[in-house]
Amino acid sequence: MVKLTQEVKDSMQGVKTIFLATCSRAGVPNVVPMGAYKVLDDETMLLSDQFMQKSLSNMQENPRVALTYWSEKGGFQIKGTVTLHKDDQVFKDDVAWVKGMKPTLNPKTAIVMKITDVYVVKPGPDAGKKLL
Amino acid sequence: MVKLTQEVKDSMQGVKTIFLATCSRAGVPNVVPMGAYKVLDDETMLLSDQFMQKSLSNMQENPRVALTYWSEKGGFQIKGTVTLHKDDQVFKDDVAWVKGMKPTLNPKTAIVMKITDVYVVKPGPDAGKKLL
Repeated sequence: MVKLTQEVKDSMQGVKTIFLATCSRAGVPNVVPMGAYKVLDDETMLLSDQFMQKSLSNMQENPRVALTYWSEKGGFQIKGTVTLHKDDQVFKDDVAWVKGMKPTLNPKTAIVMKITDVYVVKPGPDAGKKLL
Repeated sequence: MVKLTQEVKDSMQGVKTIFLATCSRAGVPNVVPMGAYKVLDDETMLLSDQFMQKSLSNMQENPRVALTYWSEKGGFQIKGTVTLHKDDQVFKDDVAWVKGMKPTLNPKTAIVMKITDVYVVKPGPDAGKKLL
């Protein structure tokens, strides 16, 4: 596991949409915009599934994920491994958090992502460089 | 192959950043923001590699890709299969196009993506629905 630095956490501030990539067992990538995410602690992110279909089935087959975002403050790519929570305290906490933002949303799965790597994505000679 | 509809092409108008997902042979997804893309014809997109590292090595191992974008006009997920061009007319045309936009950029690879599927990504009951 790696720990997110303040620079990486700051770059996420105010980012409404991140892009989550998953991959089926057969090797077909999938990538979707999503908004319900947060940093749980420096090694862990929470992603909340309200509408996922292929992303969810891919994570059931293959727990490796990658996400990225790009804003005026830049962006990074964060990779990790997920566990899926549907009927436990993690899921209950996710439901409370999401409904606190928008009561009409109905989370189906709480996705806990343990961070394994962080990469630079800013165009230029450092693009793709492993930061963490 | 599928043909992009006017709705899908319109949704890309003015979108500066798309998010390209690839997947290694071992099943690790990768996703990066990128700007140098265009629709070549209704079945084909061109992506220009200036700074890719893992995305490029993944496409050399596994030609399946997915990309998505999200703007005020919405967005879609487009999946396809790529061929990589480095020393042919396709690459020369890519270099001319990219340098016409920004002369300091130096394309390394022209990525031709034949479109296989298009999916809805707008949050809601249709999220994940196959459009094309």
